[in-house]
Amino acid sequence: MEDLHFMRLWDRYSPLLTDTQREITNLYFNFDLSLAEIAEEKGCSRQSVSDCLNKCRKQLEEYEEKLHLVAITEALEAFGEKYPEHRQEVEQISESGK
Amino acid sequence: MEDLHFMRLWDRYSPLLTDTQREITNLYFNFDLSLAEIAEEKGCSRQSVSDCLNKCRKQLEEYEEKLHLVAITEALEAFGEKYPEHRQEVEQISESGK
Repeated sequence: MEDLHFMRLWDRYSPLLTDTQREITNLYFNFDLSLAEIAEEKGCSRQSVSDCLNKCRKQLEEYEEKLHLVAITEALEAFGEKYPEHRQEVEQISESGK
Repeated sequence: MEDLHFMRLWDRYSPLLTDTQREITNLYFNFDLSLAEIAEEKGCSRQSVSDCLNKCRKQLEEYEEKLHLVAITEALEAFGEKYPEHRQEVEQISESGK
């Protein structure tokens, strides 16, 4: 469940990360690679991968505290569930943020 | 019209600016002070105020290119105008981003 939360944060805010941060978090959250696998892939230590992920988690949380884009996304999803006749339209509104 | 655009960007992304950047852009966009007035208020040169505003404009534009939060806000407004019976709900969704 915690990782689902970070996948949502990643989905919205990853364009604000650096290329390296985005690549490592992508391998971890979306490709489900282990720290050891990412370390091997990137030719760095397991510790540095772990540090990078912790730093990114913190940054993504800070962006959400300031911009609430995941909160808006989730509110739109709830609206679409409440009014199925508008689901497609609100999905498009949500997607206009990508 | 251009300033309206930046006020919208400011409204969404100003939490990502530094304190000084936020203060100067707030005086300019929201309190409608001139460069000279802001320079006097802050005890700095008119040129440095101008540089700060240009840098902030660019940063705010870059955030919108990456996150599209103003685009989502405007799409929600259009939805609320199309379906007045849902206007209040979509306004609340939009406000959850502040």
